[in-house]
Amino acid sequence: MQPEEFRAAAHELVDWIADFRARVPDLPVRSTVAPGQVRDALATAPPEQPQAFDDLLRDLSDVVVPGLTQVQHPGYFAWFPSNASLASVLGDLASSGLGALGITWQSAPALTEVEEVVTDWLRELTGLSDAWHGAIHDTASTGVLVAMLAARERASGLSETRGGLQAEPAPLVVYTSTQAHSSTPKAVLLAGFGRDNLRMIDVDPATFAMDVDALRRAMADDVAAGRRPAAVVASVGTTGTTAVDDVAAIVEAAREHGAWVHVDAAMAGSAMLLPECRWMLDGVEGADSLGWNPHKWMGTILDTSLLYVRDVEHLVRVMSTNPSYLRSAVDGEVTQYKDWGIPLGRRFRALKLWFHLRLDGAEAIRARLRRDLANAQWLREQAESEPGWQVVAPVPLQTVCLRHIPVVDGAPLEGEVLDEHTLAWCERVNATGRAFVTPAVIGGRWTVRVSIGAEATELADVEELWSLCRAAVVPA
Amino acid sequence: MQPEEFRAAAHELVDWIADFRARVPDLPVRSTVAPGQVRDALATAPPEQPQAFDDLLRDLSDVVVPGLTQVQHPGYFAWFPSNASLASVLGDLASSGLGALGITWQSAPALTEVEEVVTDWLRELTGLSDAWHGAIHDTASTGVLVAMLAARERASGLSETRGGLQAEPAPLVVYTSTQAHSSTPKAVLLAGFGRDNLRMIDVDPATFAMDVDALRRAMADDVAAGRRPAAVVASVGTTGTTAVDDVAAIVEAAREHGAWVHVDAAMAGSAMLLPECRWMLDGVEGADSLGWNPHKWMGTILDTSLLYVRDVEHLVRVMSTNPSYLRSAVDGEVTQYKDWGIPLGRRFRALKLWFHLRLDGAEAIRARLRRDLANAQWLREQAESEPGWQVVAPVPLQTVCLRHIPVVDGAPLEGEVLDEHTLAWCERVNATGRAFVTPAVIGGRWTVRVSIGAEATELADVEELWSLCRAAVVPA
Repeated sequence: MQPEEFRAAAHELVDWIADFRARVPDLPVRSTVAPGQVRDALATAPPEQPQAFDDLLRDLSDVVVPGLTQVQHPGYFAWFPSNASLASVLGDLASSGLGALGITWQSAPALTEVEEVVTDWLRELTGLSDAWHGAIHDTASTGVLVAMLAARERASGLSETRGGLQAEPAPLVVYTSTQAHSSTPKAVLLAGFGRDNLRMIDVDPATFAMDVDALRRAMADDVAAGRRPAAVVASVGTTGTTAVDDVAAIVEAAREHGAWVHVDAAMAGSAMLLPECRWMLDGVEGADSLGWNPHKWMGTILDTSLLYVRDVEHLVRVMSTNPSYLRSAVDGEVTQYKDWGIPLGRRFRALKLWFHLRLDGAEAIRARLRRDLANAQWLREQAESEPGWQVVAPVPLQTVCLRHIPVVDGAPLEGEVLDEHTLAWCERVNATGRAFVTPAVIGGRWTVRVSIGAEATELADVEELWSLCRAAVVPA
Repeated sequence: MQPEEFRAAAHELVDWIADFRARVPDLPVRSTVAPGQVRDALATAPPEQPQAFDDLLRDLSDVVVPGLTQVQHPGYFAWFPSNASLASVLGDLASSGLGALGITWQSAPALTEVEEVVTDWLRELTGLSDAWHGAIHDTASTGVLVAMLAARERASGLSETRGGLQAEPAPLVVYTSTQAHSSTPKAVLLAGFGRDNLRMIDVDPATFAMDVDALRRAMADDVAAGRRPAAVVASVGTTGTTAVDDVAAIVEAAREHGAWVHVDAAMAGSAMLLPECRWMLDGVEGADSLGWNPHKWMGTILDTSLLYVRDVEHLVRVMSTNPSYLRSAVDGEVTQYKDWGIPLGRRFRALKLWFHLRLDGAEAIRARLRRDLANAQWLREQAESEPGWQVVAPVPLQTVCLRHIPVVDGAPLEGEVLDEHTLAWCERVNATGRAFVTPAVIGGRWTVRVSIGAEATELADVEELWSLCRAAVVPA
């Protein structure tokens, strides 16, 4: 395709996107397609001849859009926010249009250096000291894996350069809480530690934050048994309830054993833009790595996940390669992000952050985050003051975990019958198409998470959601 | 940013991109910026207030573009092609505009099912049987890491569910050739095997393909010493010379030990679109995994790397998570790509392939690949018939490895002096700004790789490159 054909088609597509974004509020939030429906509508023989651009646009409208859950919808309260701010979409378009190849600094100096600029901007905006150095990864899952590999290699004195984990004299152990995101156990397993060497530490039953005394006991028990604490993953803003682990206490406990501390703030990192929320990361300057996702609440379109580390030199020792075909005359003077993570080739993702921050400005982003925090407190207050409703966890951020406990035959519903009731009213809310909430098991029982923070969600949308919830707990 | 502001800015940006793409041939191929130059031009305090869109466009033009090596340039012959076909850029824009979130099938059914459709199209187009199942990863580096993790867990009977690699009774060993891409040793080290358990098998000195007899001997030696062969990585189209390992022989050798065979065809996968090239993958149906990058020669914009596996069930056992907050009613009936790789959240990358294949059509893509193969043969013939020039490796694909060996005082240059000559004329070609080639060490000596296959490169551009090379070997 030549530039002039691209120009014509891209203008059409831009109009299609602007129209689509304008009509998102009118679409059902949760996709209503059945498994296989999209595939059946599109699966044909591979196209041998060029097809008309309008045919693709029609398929986008008729098949793809109905096949998507609309996470940009003002009624989207599921999982966590996944904002694709239009300013960041422009940055993504610029990246695609430039067609750059990020393998070494030489292949795309600007790709490297804009990434240095924007990760430094976000370091400053979130109040981190200049001891931290950031890079953009696809997701926090990848970030925590990189952190676990760095931790493994620090604890083992770079075992990868010898016999690997296979030759280690005593098992290395990793600690996190039962409320950690599933990506942490996955990373620990993929890094080769083994499930037997992963300790899911209990949490405080009221706050869902890691019980640091239990962590200390677990580490002491392991040491007594000849095992070696290698890493602790602290969660700031857990996926279930946005619980906040005590990072300072965890850092202190880990330091006694020389264990790496990774802070998973995938969701809560955005809140660090607000000075009044920074208490959540107290102690982080004693940690070794910190991951958070601008592609969640802050709204730089997926995939924009930041991993900050303090000891870049160690990370590079673990991750670097230096084949002859990638060498250049400036290698000693420049950042080579290929040596900070898993992939060699990297997209120009920094442009998404660069456009987002420059076109929206930090002040407006902070105002939106504060709006969402206030909306969450509003919902919490409604539920706390309405008979039959329970807010099952503290609300330090923008997620409110609700349970409705009806009184049947004079007794509050409990056990599996309560779970059935919860999942039923959750589904009734979602079936309206006006809102989408997702359930999670909290403290052994199903709960409905209301995760506020879609860019489009105003107080009126939270009010509507609350009406839908109250209507849904009464079976039709 | 609201849809109408986006519409206006995006139209401007589309014109900027179309204009940029049209003027790429007039830009220097290799960026001429010095380390830190881009950063110094852009680093400011984080933006508090919104900035004008035109300011960003000006920075794109004045700072970012000069800070990029132009891999879409007709004179780009460095590393490997990294085509960002404009049809695929449209798909990338559609993906960004939709703002979808791929975490589970439910979060974006179309994101999952279009990926099933396009990976199946490419399976058919490359002649693989329907025993293979594909997914899109960011890069081949990630793909080979996933393959090594799957291999580790198969060889160890899912050790991750117990003590991990730390509790394995005898070391697991991985084999590849000395010509393997640097991502393979990196993946082996990250997966915890350790460098002591990585065998870099010698290659045939003429073809640079793995010496399969040496592989057999290495595996037998390891078994005799109580170690266990876990995986072999075969390279089809090595990075140095596009050498082709004998996959069928490797599969046969590996099978005797139950070792996983991963085929790294990152570059050569595109050639599998041409039936006349499929001999390069003879035997692949006996392998366990196969990775290749449409974002290289085929030209679907980065990041579009395919990993095909035969035993999806095993891969899912190694990679899956199942937290309560991600469950849905349809979980048993649908593909959950989160369980096929490392990240949980995924972009709608399938649209890049979908747009590229539908708008360009397979026939035109094949014609372009054949053009590049013919151009490589043309260059090989020129160099072979020109005194003083040497083609240092066979040319099965689109890369020609050149050495110029001047006669000085009656004797051909050799050793380090020859290396100096090679690197000097390579730099002289690149300093013209009209072409960019990268050197590599082949058979212990520096060589200049001419990797043909930028979408814009016609025979006339290869002719110009050849003129530049011949001029460059004569010092000014």
